[in-house]
Amino acid sequence: MRPTVLNLQESRIREVANAGIGRSDVLPFWFGESDEVTPEFIRQAAIESLQRGETFYGHNLGLPELREAIARYMATVHQPIDSDRLAVTSGGVNALMLAVQALVDAGDEVVAVTPVWPNLVAQPEILGARVRCVSLQPVDGAWKLDMQALLEAVTTRTRVLIINAPNNPTGWTLTRDEQLRIAAHCRATGTWILADEVYERLYFGGGAHGCAPSFLDVCDPQDRLVVVHSFSKSFLMTGWRLGWLVMPAAMTPQVGKLIEFNTSCAPVFVQRAAMTALARTDDVTPRVVAHLKLCRDTLVPLLQALPGVDVAPAPGGMYAFFRLAGASDSLATAKRLVLEAGIGLAPGVAFGASDADPAGCWLRWCFASRDPQRLVAGVERLRAWLGR
Amino acid sequence: MRPTVLNLQESRIREVANAGIGRSDVLPFWFGESDEVTPEFIRQAAIESLQRGETFYGHNLGLPELREAIARYMATVHQPIDSDRLAVTSGGVNALMLAVQALVDAGDEVVAVTPVWPNLVAQPEILGARVRCVSLQPVDGAWKLDMQALLEAVTTRTRVLIINAPNNPTGWTLTRDEQLRIAAHCRATGTWILADEVYERLYFGGGAHGCAPSFLDVCDPQDRLVVVHSFSKSFLMTGWRLGWLVMPAAMTPQVGKLIEFNTSCAPVFVQRAAMTALARTDDVTPRVVAHLKLCRDTLVPLLQALPGVDVAPAPGGMYAFFRLAGASDSLATAKRLVLEAGIGLAPGVAFGASDADPAGCWLRWCFASRDPQRLVAGVERLRAWLGR
Repeated sequence: MRPTVLNLQESRIREVANAGIGRSDVLPFWFGESDEVTPEFIRQAAIESLQRGETFYGHNLGLPELREAIARYMATVHQPIDSDRLAVTSGGVNALMLAVQALVDAGDEVVAVTPVWPNLVAQPEILGARVRCVSLQPVDGAWKLDMQALLEAVTTRTRVLIINAPNNPTGWTLTRDEQLRIAAHCRATGTWILADEVYERLYFGGGAHGCAPSFLDVCDPQDRLVVVHSFSKSFLMTGWRLGWLVMPAAMTPQVGKLIEFNTSCAPVFVQRAAMTALARTDDVTPRVVAHLKLCRDTLVPLLQALPGVDVAPAPGGMYAFFRLAGASDSLATAKRLVLEAGIGLAPGVAFGASDADPAGCWLRWCFASRDPQRLVAGVERLRAWLGR
Repeated sequence: MRPTVLNLQESRIREVANAGIGRSDVLPFWFGESDEVTPEFIRQAAIESLQRGETFYGHNLGLPELREAIARYMATVHQPIDSDRLAVTSGGVNALMLAVQALVDAGDEVVAVTPVWPNLVAQPEILGARVRCVSLQPVDGAWKLDMQALLEAVTTRTRVLIINAPNNPTGWTLTRDEQLRIAAHCRATGTWILADEVYERLYFGGGAHGCAPSFLDVCDPQDRLVVVHSFSKSFLMTGWRLGWLVMPAAMTPQVGKLIEFNTSCAPVFVQRAAMTALARTDDVTPRVVAHLKLCRDTLVPLLQALPGVDVAPAPGGMYAFFRLAGASDSLATAKRLVLEAGIGLAPGVAFGASDADPAGCWLRWCFASRDPQRLVAGVERLRAWLGR
């Protein structure tokens, strides 16, 4: 097998979760997923499609009517986007992989802003690229971009800049001004921006249409920009594996070829569910976001009240990323928390957060919980464990 | 964008199908898909899973109970296979892509036996490999392997040998003896065999358990062999996008990582449908195979009776791959057949069949038709067109 693949980091999150296998007394907050089932009316649309017998291959780029529906949805939160800039993919992660396959040759240089979901770094490595990471900096529990460091890292040799904002795990979100500076710089260096904006609707900072700032609003249609979206987070559809790409129109047929060679298409009955989700966005997304804000505002003050915990409320996403004083190994700490405290958190090192911070190590808590009392119970366990 | 991706051949089959857009008078035989809906009891299993709320992420490698069910199914047609050698994938094409990502570095040499489904050649090209093709040879309308040419092409520099048998488009099927010789040779050169055996059940040559000969029956569990399977053909589940890989056990965790970075997992409700399909194989697959044999035995003699048509009944698959005398450009011929005869066929050049054959050009006819009379009507149209 390829050394590149053998060397890919296995999920440290799963390593922690494995430590909890067979234990029924663990409160799990490790995975980035709500514990709420997809709304019934979305499931019903898939059921009716199956009953109609829609079990055949579909178009590589997705159902034309779904691409039109995505274009209409995007126009409610961004500038109008032509459907010929859209491709339907088998999940957000698949959208990211297709973009990387389209853009990254072996030996290319890629820059990624970290901490970040590990998949974003692994994908260019699979294509044989060298990935250079620019780290966000924690300031009073919140995370900030060092713009100077980023602009120095992205040069004419940088093929792709990968940015996820609102960010998993930190919640860090780009400002409009930062996006303008990055876009101008990348236009000058000829670098593609691959923007993972799957959390754009999970944004608590107000803003236009309740959305986090998007590169789509500061770039032109022909700019070297690819934006990744997913039905997973805003529509409670994690297990359906459906997402989409926004790209320059000239790139779309190329991505169509890559979809043929990767998955051929997304199931038509899954796409029918997505059409219903989009048509009834207002019945799902605002409620999801309001509930997540309640969860965040339940969890974060309780965490802040704990001794040795450093955390700020994230403007976006569904995670509290906090530093625990006195701990220096986030993976070992997360495992101890499973076994000794009965709470399941994700270790910061899984996302490229350094364990060398003398002030402590970082842990990610997914607060997407149907019942906010689960969060309160989790903090109580953490408090008791810290008090030992 | 990458020149490698820009240079990937767009589907010539789709190019022909596009020529028929808006025409209601075309009988389509171009795509490799039955026109029969997935059996109701398989769809019902997915519906019940959706009603139960199984809409969350699943294990990267697939539901443990599905992997066990696949292992039991495989044991009915092959030697027993441990479930730790199995990964569930988002379709057969996705299984092939994952295998190529695991094995092929940029610059590697890959050998493929052609004519073949174009995806098998495109995937290593996406990873930056050089693909060398060894062509089957037509003899009296049937296709034969030139074993000497193949063994000479596969050297210690060959990273992977890609073989699809029963073959799309020719129906060519490897014999047990040929598999033994190829396996021994690849063991000596250190070459991985990537065997696309998705058509193994669509086999009309008798054989053990109604299966075409498989590399699984001549190789050891730790041999450098990866076998690709799909629910699409044997279970009438093309649009569901579900397949699986059989590989050495040591490779499975590596493929698990790659699945995480490509699609994360297949939808659980799709996997539930597959479990029902496997549990009721005898209610689906034997009927599908018997019907396909009826289709083949309806179509091929009618084609053989046409002047200038050279074709032999294929031992496996669901295609008649025939040569048409006097025609030299399969793509142009297939487009003319759409516009002038109202029949949709796939051009041989789409599969790497040479158009330089002085005896004529090659066309693929998918005979997976619920109503065999559609095949009769298609041949009538071809006869009338030839008679002009």
